[in-house]
Amino acid sequence: MTYFKNIDKIAFEGKGSDNPLAFKHYNPQEVVLGKTMEEHLRFAIAYWHTFTGAGSDPFGVGTAVRAWDSASGMDQAKMRVEANFEFLSKIGVPYYCFHDRDIAPEGSTLAETNKNLDVIVDLLEQGMKDTGAKLLWNTANMFTNPRFVHGAGTTSNADVFAYAGAQLKKSLEVGKRLGAENYVFWGGREGYESLLNTDMALELDNLARLLHMAVAYAKEINFGAQFLIEPKPKEPTKHQYDFDAATTISFLQKYGLKDRFKLNLEANHATLAGHTFEHEIRVAAINGMLGSLDANQGDLLLGWDTDEFPTDIVSTTLTMFEVLKAGGIGKGGVNFDAKVRRGSFEDVDLFLAHIAGMDTYAWGLKAAAKLIEERVLDNIVENRYRSFKEGIGAEIVSGKATLASLEQYALNNNAIKNESGRVERIRLQLNEVIFSV
Amino acid sequence: MTYFKNIDKIAFEGKGSDNPLAFKHYNPQEVVLGKTMEEHLRFAIAYWHTFTGAGSDPFGVGTAVRAWDSASGMDQAKMRVEANFEFLSKIGVPYYCFHDRDIAPEGSTLAETNKNLDVIVDLLEQGMKDTGAKLLWNTANMFTNPRFVHGAGTTSNADVFAYAGAQLKKSLEVGKRLGAENYVFWGGREGYESLLNTDMALELDNLARLLHMAVAYAKEINFGAQFLIEPKPKEPTKHQYDFDAATTISFLQKYGLKDRFKLNLEANHATLAGHTFEHEIRVAAINGMLGSLDANQGDLLLGWDTDEFPTDIVSTTLTMFEVLKAGGIGKGGVNFDAKVRRGSFEDVDLFLAHIAGMDTYAWGLKAAAKLIEERVLDNIVENRYRSFKEGIGAEIVSGKATLASLEQYALNNNAIKNESGRVERIRLQLNEVIFSV
Amino acid sequence: MTYFKNIDKIAFEGKGSDNPLAFKHYNPQEVVLGKTMEEHLRFAIAYWHTFTGAGSDPFGVGTAVRAWDSASGMDQAKMRVEANFEFLSKIGVPYYCFHDRDIAPEGSTLAETNKNLDVIVDLLEQGMKDTGAKLLWNTANMFTNPRFVHGAGTTSNADVFAYAGAQLKKSLEVGKRLGAENYVFWGGREGYESLLNTDMALELDNLARLLHMAVAYAKEINFGAQFLIEPKPKEPTKHQYDFDAATTISFLQKYGLKDRFKLNLEANHATLAGHTFEHEIRVAAINGMLGSLDANQGDLLLGWDTDEFPTDIVSTTLTMFEVLKAGGIGKGGVNFDAKVRRGSFEDVDLFLAHIAGMDTYAWGLKAAAKLIEERVLDNIVENRYRSFKEGIGAEIVSGKATLASLEQYALNNNAIKNESGRVERIRLQLNEVIFSV
Amino acid sequence: MTYFKNIDKIAFEGKGSDNPLAFKHYNPQEVVLGKTMEEHLRFAIAYWHTFTGAGSDPFGVGTAVRAWDSASGMDQAKMRVEANFEFLSKIGVPYYCFHDRDIAPEGSTLAETNKNLDVIVDLLEQGMKDTGAKLLWNTANMFTNPRFVHGAGTTSNADVFAYAGAQLKKSLEVGKRLGAENYVFWGGREGYESLLNTDMALELDNLARLLHMAVAYAKEINFGAQFLIEPKPKEPTKHQYDFDAATTISFLQKYGLKDRFKLNLEANHATLAGHTFEHEIRVAAINGMLGSLDANQGDLLLGWDTDEFPTDIVSTTLTMFEVLKAGGIGKGGVNFDAKVRRGSFEDVDLFLAHIAGMDTYAWGLKAAAKLIEERVLDNIVENRYRSFKEGIGAEIVSGKATLASLEQYALNNNAIKNESGRVERIRLQLNEVIFSV
Repeated sequence: MTYFKNIDKIAFEGKGSDNPLAFKHYNPQEVVLGKTMEEHLRFAIAYWHTFTGAGSDPFGVGTAVRAWDSASGMDQAKMRVEANFEFLSKIGVPYYCFHDRDIAPEGSTLAETNKNLDVIVDLLEQGMKDTGAKLLWNTANMFTNPRFVHGAGTTSNADVFAYAGAQLKKSLEVGKRLGAENYVFWGGREGYESLLNTDMALELDNLARLLHMAVAYAKEINFGAQFLIEPKPKEPTKHQYDFDAATTISFLQKYGLKDRFKLNLEANHATLAGHTFEHEIRVAAINGMLGSLDANQGDLLLGWDTDEFPTDIVSTTLTMFEVLKAGGIGKGGVNFDAKVRRGSFEDVDLFLAHIAGMDTYAWGLKAAAKLIEERVLDNIVENRYRSFKEGIGAEIVSGKATLASLEQYALNNNAIKNESGRVERIRLQLNEVIFSV
Repeated sequence: MTYFKNIDKIAFEGKGSDNPLAFKHYNPQEVVLGKTMEEHLRFAIAYWHTFTGAGSDPFGVGTAVRAWDSASGMDQAKMRVEANFEFLSKIGVPYYCFHDRDIAPEGSTLAETNKNLDVIVDLLEQGMKDTGAKLLWNTANMFTNPRFVHGAGTTSNADVFAYAGAQLKKSLEVGKRLGAENYVFWGGREGYESLLNTDMALELDNLARLLHMAVAYAKEINFGAQFLIEPKPKEPTKHQYDFDAATTISFLQKYGLKDRFKLNLEANHATLAGHTFEHEIRVAAINGMLGSLDANQGDLLLGWDTDEFPTDIVSTTLTMFEVLKAGGIGKGGVNFDAKVRRGSFEDVDLFLAHIAGMDTYAWGLKAAAKLIEERVLDNIVENRYRSFKEGIGAEIVSGKATLASLEQYALNNNAIKNESGRVERIRLQLNEVIFSV
Repeated sequence: MTYFKNIDKIAFEGKGSDNPLAFKHYNPQEVVLGKTMEEHLRFAIAYWHTFTGAGSDPFGVGTAVRAWDSASGMDQAKMRVEANFEFLSKIGVPYYCFHDRDIAPEGSTLAETNKNLDVIVDLLEQGMKDTGAKLLWNTANMFTNPRFVHGAGTTSNADVFAYAGAQLKKSLEVGKRLGAENYVFWGGREGYESLLNTDMALELDNLARLLHMAVAYAKEINFGAQFLIEPKPKEPTKHQYDFDAATTISFLQKYGLKDRFKLNLEANHATLAGHTFEHEIRVAAINGMLGSLDANQGDLLLGWDTDEFPTDIVSTTLTMFEVLKAGGIGKGGVNFDAKVRRGSFEDVDLFLAHIAGMDTYAWGLKAAAKLIEERVLDNIVENRYRSFKEGIGAEIVSGKATLASLEQYALNNNAIKNESGRVERIRLQLNEVIFSV
Repeated sequence: MTYFKNIDKIAFEGKGSDNPLAFKHYNPQEVVLGKTMEEHLRFAIAYWHTFTGAGSDPFGVGTAVRAWDSASGMDQAKMRVEANFEFLSKIGVPYYCFHDRDIAPEGSTLAETNKNLDVIVDLLEQGMKDTGAKLLWNTANMFTNPRFVHGAGTTSNADVFAYAGAQLKKSLEVGKRLGAENYVFWGGREGYESLLNTDMALELDNLARLLHMAVAYAKEINFGAQFLIEPKPKEPTKHQYDFDAATTISFLQKYGLKDRFKLNLEANHATLAGHTFEHEIRVAAINGMLGSLDANQGDLLLGWDTDEFPTDIVSTTLTMFEVLKAGGIGKGGVNFDAKVRRGSFEDVDLFLAHIAGMDTYAWGLKAAAKLIEERVLDNIVENRYRSFKEGIGAEIVSGKATLASLEQYALNNNAIKNESGRVERIRLQLNEVIFSV
């Protein structure tokens, strides 16, 4: 069955084009800094937003009418699989990502649920073979079902923890079977509503226990995917334990998990935590923890996760600048964890929105590459910190300096001269570069 | 000279009293859970807000007219010393805290600055002998002077780093001489205005280098104070490196400094970072990092550090509950890092505001003690997590469980039953306890 | 059928009681400032949260299992009616409130939808007769159905506007029939997602047109309910037109609707707009626009509408203080637009949560009454502004002063003396009053 | 004396230029939509940030070293006048703006203060004659001096109100003498710290009284400047009365001042109030209240007024789009109420920052003009609301429809069909336009 009938494969037409259903910037085979755009960006589609989501919000039911809404249950799930491969192929995205519960409905028992999953995984496997589509990552949804009301790895109920473990086991097996390049942990309910009834120490210990079990099981079944934790500060819980990059790194350090995990960073989660996206990427990068990206954008005047498609070019430029400086995204990718607005309920909006996101990222990639090739920011930074390359600065960096030697130096140095940070000028330069590519 | 002429020593008069200049809750020698209130709370006065601050804000100059404003320079500094001891004695607070630049003005050279400092430290030492007042902590102000425009330990200018090292050395010596029980690092300018011109990796490495030098020098001079880092997420810089408790712990872990440092947590900094104060204390406590408290409160509808005197009893109750559960505040204390509102510019407001803060904390202490004695929250938590004490829960906690054993258990367990978290009822119970003490 | 089997009518037991299912403060017949608590507070139950809501959130489905979930469609709707009257009677609340779509499901046509509504309204009418329960207000839900995706009164689609008009007509008729004392307009989708595709001027004109039609029709059918608009700043739309009290008053002024409308203010909406609840009430009161209250509380560290049950006694005290100073809530009431947390999914939580809210409001009422009887704040305010009672102040207030006369006065007055605002002291006094009642 | 020695007049060099001290977009005589850029934009310099500000913040003293810092008092004030005209001439900005206290220091009495003012106003008058510079607006600083601690027009002290009246009178005279095209009221302290001690009704009445006196006096002296109120939601006070555009319009309506005033809108104030800048402009425009703009930008992750130079091209495009759609800025202008970052303390940063702002606005103007010429958004909006042009939509708009006629229509219309709002596509289109000019 064809789901997106009036839409052909989206082609690159370049900057002059006024065809809404064409790329103006994303040219997959175009080479930038020695790699193709496709290799740099490793785009992925989020199954949940694109095929399962329908535009509901806390004040309204879904608005989207999709061809697969004519069915329900397993029939609907099978239609979504077909739609997924058609969409990937038409939009030209090589990867997709899913939660177990996105792809198949729960049954009345865990055994039945797993059976449902197996049926769909068979179809996905076949579809991947047929189309060449790849799985960037999969994960387990341990937050939607009422059983996870008090958490999964951090639940107050051992039976629920056991269920989570079972679900996770199956999910790792699914990942292995479909060749997932990464496996993501987003702790949707791993947090608390109120400290008053919460044993935070036990909950965090238990969360670490669950992750250690996952590490052990992956090793046992020889599942080599990169493990990723996805930070988010709040929502749905009042406080999510994986608040931001620094908090998550701290947790992984404490529990001896740092070597096996990296971070899956999301733009809107960064801003909800009070950070820019580029800040979170930098923090991850300098700790060797940059794993993958969930590409979207938030509305900074709103206090919840809006998961908008990314259209802010300054942000995507700085994102790709951080990624390039970190040596690339590695096994990770750029997954559009973004949903069309509730008012953009037509099928064609799925295409227009992904085009908007992909073009904005491709544009950002080109601008970031130019920043690097012309050393626009590198020269500024290198010059700014040059005093640490010699004299007292070099002694500080090498570890030779002591408070006493510094005091000796400072007492004899009455001519400290700072230089302007030039932020206003640099911001304008950044604009000039972005809009010249 | 007498500075607060019409004010006598503030006495405890108890709940019935309508004397504004008396305590209704803070009764220093009253025993709560086996210790006196004074021992539990270890109150301290913040020199900067009380004796140096005058009520300026970004849109207006200071409003307070103090007796010591009749002088300037070193003369004024000496008057403030006298005022400090008179105030401590009248308000009945055992400790005080200061930055080096609060107590003495800078000279035209570092040498002269240090000389100024020595003169005042002599007076402080004498005053402490005379009155019994103690120094909870001191610190170095490395953020007000223009030289620190780009940071101190994280500056882009090695000469400034050297100056910071020299200032820190002197400050540690001052702390040792005055018997400071703690030494605080608040990185006022340790952050960035823009990532575009910032080498975050170098800046953080340098910050760690400075702290290592401080550790070494303290050892050298045998200064045994507890070292504390004070997290704050933003302001004055756009991003402060010591964002919150978790971030700071992560930093200390990474750089091998965790054993030598604890945290100095501030209520208003917690809320600026998106956390409650009790959250930050809990995070510190379960990581063995609870050091000391900066007592104040923010206005959650405002986005900057308002440093109000604490009058929220629910918050002080939960604060003291966390402290008591953590085994007390140890060498730390409860320092009023709070300033009278710009409109509360009369001398008597300094007393009224401290009384408000001290009574609110004493009340919170009594309520927290009752929560503990009656096991109000402990029973709730113990019951809530009881499933981890036996069966599959005990196997999880002991490390025996694996994903496979959990799956086995879950496949045979089709009757998961959660229990209500009862948050609404618990909140009302909390109110009832608070208002019964 | 009995829905809340193990729960009897909630009785007042007073402060000593440790029965969770009893009131400690709310004693309906207790007289405060000349009226009973029941008369002052005029409590109401929100049908949607209590009988229709199930605890879903954007990341999870409902958790509550209610007796009426055994049925669906009209059968379920009938069970909810019974549950409503049982609950009102057991909790001792005189009023309830609903949206049309809370009480009856939509049919496949508007005619069928209206027929469904009629069936349920019959039952409600009978139940009210039988139990004495009263309708504080009703309203039309013009935001959940996909047809309202772009708004109702502010839709871009005239057919949708027409539908909204029809729905509103029916809703006014229902209100009249059930003797609603008020009729509420909350513009759930009256706002925009993006200015880029929005004709704000037309949308606001249209919204006013719809309200004028409602005024005319109410007059035609002789429906005398007080009309109320409920401000909210954002969510679900990015910008809601009825942003806050001041914005809504401005809108009503501009379109000649101010005399026919008052405001229905909600605590959590106030804080989302950056205001305290008491601020919004004061703004309404001094403009003669205080209509009714939606009682709940938000979490100020979260950026969305959490609709928690009110347990903050300082807030309810200030709320009731503003209400008492404004001469009471009039035809309005205190409606618990609050939902039990997703983790509080047991039936008994509905009772515990309402008890928490009712006791917190009753406590606030008593404290507010004491503030007024003892003129605690009145004396402070009267004294603070006393200079406007005579001399130049009286000339200013009477309108006699001009810039020239003020200049003449000021040139001859070199001794301006301000007085402290004493905020810290007043806050402590407020606490003392609250906890003495 | 020359203040900016190594800097020549800034020239337009166009997009290819890599000269930091040249314009790439702002070409004053370039014609856009029938007017020159200069006529459209009417740029102004803010005297306070550029000549009086030095980069202090709540945690640090000023960093800027300016040539005029070699003097103090009236001598310094005179140097600033010279620097102002040199700067205006070199940067090529036609207008400037000031508060009375920016240009001259206060004396020990009001009379002396006014005398100081007169001396400087003489110099400004001469400088304007000599250089052709013009005064966009002036205003009275009634917030910095401690006397205004509790407000000016909303003070609790009648003597302070009288002083404010006198200061305002003088300020209007100064405006008249210098030919100010507008006169601004920003109520720096017109708000409250706490409702507990505030008589909001009296304060607002008094504020209106002061404005009525100003209207009367301007008429008396025949000062025809456009009067402007500048909304801001908070800071320095907890709540500022002129919260946002809608609140300010409501106030002006209520007190019969709407015809004599328009709004001076500021970008950073808009975002602090939870709005976009374009939203505030739209609200003003559809109420006929658009007066003038304070151009800057905030950091949406920070909760205070950062007053950054505008470098966000999307924002300036939408700003100029709203202005052009409203028929232009009229007697108002685009005033850079922006300050160089504390780290940008060199003289050249003043130029670089203004260039950044001016180029960003010029770019936005060109993009907005293209949006209008090509009817990019107009076509979208016209098409989206077309149903209100005929049939039932036309009846609604014309006022013929009633709830009964709408019901009749809706009952017979079972085929409501909405169309996508296409937000994602439109955002990408906007980017494409911006980056094509």
